[in-house]
Amino acid sequence: MAVEVVYRSSRDLERLFMDKAEADRHDKMLELAEALAATLQKVSPELTERQADDIGIFMARHRELFAKAFKNNPEVLAELPESIETGT
Amino acid sequence: MAVEVVYRSSRDLERLFMDKAEADRHDKMLELAEALAATLQKVSPELTERQADDIGIFMARHRELFAKAFKNNPEVLAELPESIETGT
Repeated sequence: MAVEVVYRSSRDLERLFMDKAEADRHDKMLELAEALAATLQKVSPELTERQADDIGIFMARHRELFAKAFKNNPEVLAELPESIETGT
Repeated sequence: MAVEVVYRSSRDLERLFMDKAEADRHDKMLELAEALAATLQKVSPELTERQADDIGIFMARHRELFAKAFKNNPEVLAELPESIETGT
């Protein structure tokens, strides 16, 4: 038996990481997802919280692609997978 | 009477511009909005077409802000107006 260090984001207590950098990436992803979900619900109040959260997480998981799309290249969105995935 | 040149985006035949650069900006905004709406409907199939279009247009109108948010700065989303506006 031994004590070991694990890391987690305060936004998602369930998910533990052995690697601090990975925990940090997960936290940053969730931070963006939350900000997006809040924005989406303001823009379209009839969205359910679940819909806003799902879309926020999907976009945050593909943030590099969306960053390019918003910058100058909407066509990159065609590269996205067809549906929400639960993996990272 | 005289003949004059006006410009429009083939994506929005109603809206005429005296300035070609403005018509081009409008076309680019609509191109991004369409790509976003299509993506949103794939991610969240229960979204209505109207919801997907509204969100796509809102995001495309604020593309610089979303580009920053996706790049590294989610806090900028707090600067967005509270609701969808019909102006440019």
